[in-house]
Amino acid sequence: SEVKKIAVIAGDGIGPEVVAEAEKVLKVTEEVFGYKFETEHALFGGIAIDERGTPLPEDTLEICRSADAVLLGAVGGPKWDNNSKELRPETGLLGIRKALGLFSNLRPAVVFDCLKDASTLKPEVLEGTDLMVVRELTGGIYFGEKLRRQGEHGEEAVDTCVYNVTEVERIVRQAFEIAGKRRKKLASVDKANVLETSRLWREVVNRLAPEYPDVELEHVLVDNCAMQLLRRPSSFDVIVTENMFGDILSDEAAMLTGSIGMLASASMGEGSYGLYEPVHGSAPDIAGQGLANPIATILSLALMFRLTFGYEDAAAAIEAAVAEVLDAGHRTSDIAVDKSKAISTTQMGDLIAAAI
Amino acid sequence: SEVKKIAVIAGDGIGPEVVAEAEKVLKVTEEVFGYKFETEHALFGGIAIDERGTPLPEDTLEICRSADAVLLGAVGGPKWDNNSKELRPETGLLGIRKALGLFSNLRPAVVFDCLKDASTLKPEVLEGTDLMVVRELTGGIYFGEKLRRQGEHGEEAVDTCVYNVTEVERIVRQAFEIAGKRRKKLASVDKANVLETSRLWREVVNRLAPEYPDVELEHVLVDNCAMQLLRRPSSFDVIVTENMFGDILSDEAAMLTGSIGMLASASMGEGSYGLYEPVHGSAPDIAGQGLANPIATILSLALMFRLTFGYEDAAAAIEAAVAEVLDAGHRTSDIAVDKSKAISTTQMGDLIAAAI
Ligand SMILES: CC(C)[C@H](C(=O)O)[C@@H](O)C(=O)O
Ligand SMILES: CC(C)[C@H](C(=O)O)[C@@H](O)C(=O)O
Repeated sequence: SEVKKIAVIAGDGIGPEVVAEAEKVLKVTEEVFGYKFETEHALFGGIAIDERGTPLPEDTLEICRSADAVLLGAVGGPKWDNNSKELRPETGLLGIRKALGLFSNLRPAVVFDCLKDASTLKPEVLEGTDLMVVRELTGGIYFGEKLRRQGEHGEEAVDTCVYNVTEVERIVRQAFEIAGKRRKKLASVDKANVLETSRLWREVVNRLAPEYPDVELEHVLVDNCAMQLLRRPSSFDVIVTENMFGDILSDEAAMLTGSIGMLASASMGEGSYGLYEPVHGSAPDIAGQGLANPIATILSLALMFRLTFGYEDAAAAIEAAVAEVLDAGHRTSDIAVDKSKAISTTQMGDLIAAAI
Repeated sequence: SEVKKIAVIAGDGIGPEVVAEAEKVLKVTEEVFGYKFETEHALFGGIAIDERGTPLPEDTLEICRSADAVLLGAVGGPKWDNNSKELRPETGLLGIRKALGLFSNLRPAVVFDCLKDASTLKPEVLEGTDLMVVRELTGGIYFGEKLRRQGEHGEEAVDTCVYNVTEVERIVRQAFEIAGKRRKKLASVDKANVLETSRLWREVVNRLAPEYPDVELEHVLVDNCAMQLLRRPSSFDVIVTENMFGDILSDEAAMLTGSIGMLASASMGEGSYGLYEPVHGSAPDIAGQGLANPIATILSLALMFRLTFGYEDAAAAIEAAVAEVLDAGHRTSDIAVDKSKAISTTQMGDLIAAAI
């Protein structure tokens, strides 16, 4: 079959370690399923600031653009936290989303059986929780005009939140389609009782809804959603929302599963182009010690196979391999009950690769 | 002693029922402690829309302005949900905050012993949770310019988030002071890695911090705060944040206590002026049936005594009376384990009044 190009961005902290294990899995999948991949590594985030003076070098963007998909480890760390805006890893993250047109962030929040005790929620509340937050990723207050000025009452700062119907339509359509392939429930989250952008959002959702008659739609105000996620997490299927609300709610949803260290995410652009990364951060405190859990990154690769390449067999095989290794009781230290029996990052990668 | 004026706004749904019980308690406190109050009732919210064609009639504002404090039941309901913006109860709520200069919303989130099982969080996680969200209430994206316009990609909507240093300073100072009287920990929540208003916010917090050396300060990003509230609720003392983030986080914090039906809130203006209201809504589904729980409104009155009038004795007496009645096993149906033994709204009010 055709050779697929994957841009690989290891990033900072534990990024290189977890990405290396995902690449191991990538190789095995090639052998087992006969798919062909070409990987190209690129610098991004803190390491790019250190080595190239910018979090998002132009050639990194070129490598990403010429690839079919991007695999990202993690970026950031205290080392760069006090840098000026242009020299911060987050600025690279926002830049790459915009430059690659990654308008949709898919954040599945599922409960791993072996981790359900790790949640701070009662098990009976968590039971059956399997939701997906679809977050708009290139609009809203993240990318609107920002400024400082002198006002009547001293210095003032301004952020602008802008959405146009085209932006709202494409993300809402995607959410309806995803919901249609799942449990057919969509919660559209906004603050339509206060924000004009939310009123536009809700109008678009209501206009499109009749085209998806099999999907049950509810509108939920963002403050109420923050509560309902806690009260009845398992009743949600797909949640679609704008950029800032999605940032907050997807993290809340991930945390309540107790499985945050194991969750994958996809940031999708036009067509099937996507950037895949674990939900967890760069964890600089444990970097380089073989303590990191590579599962979220490996599952991000599985998501890439499914969503960008349509290699459902390989995606399912990776997911099954992860489940098998976990079922056999293998744990990295972050998820081990008995830390003394914990295995290393590379051991976990080897076991999953072997199980495929 | 001097006569204090209280504007009483019953509002919609269960508002009139719960406010009536708070007034009962007010009367008893007068008798027991010798304080003198004059109450004046005013129309607001849905009922004002129905009777006067506007959610916030001018004479209601006059009554509030000439009072020392305002007691509010609840407003809103499905009846007015599809009205145009000017004819919605929420618009009245935003209007009254702005008109009375209520710039600070204090939302204590505490766990009531008798309700800790009602939380979806594990009891051991909840143990010791007692936090206060200090939310900026008259600035930010709630009150910035809003507009619709034709853009390149079809119709677009704009919301503007503005903060000036004066606005940030007064709320942050208040939060530092409140923290100083509590467990001396302040978490300032922002999104300084993305928003200019958040960077201004953080600068102000850092500039003021040295004036409050006994208060331990941490900066928490809003997405991380949504997670940490779930992971370690008891580690928070005071959380201060801007309007939109505060809306979301205060509801999340309230819900995780399991006690949302019993929580009071205060919206403070300059000096000791304040508007006090229960956190719960107007619950139109149970209105008029004697099923509502008046405790949150009664505790809002206690908060008024403490914060506006400095009547600490009366505030403490009300709180003790509530605790006594709950300890004796009395429950309204919302918090009763055995619903058949539940008492009515007025019975609960009578018991608390009698216990003072
Ligand atoms: C680092 C930050 C800019 C980013 C965001 O807010 O989008 C992060 O929180 C995320 O969710 O990917
Ligand atoms: C009704 C709404 C406008 C209001 C707000 O968002 O402030 C409410 O959610 C609140 O928190 O008091």
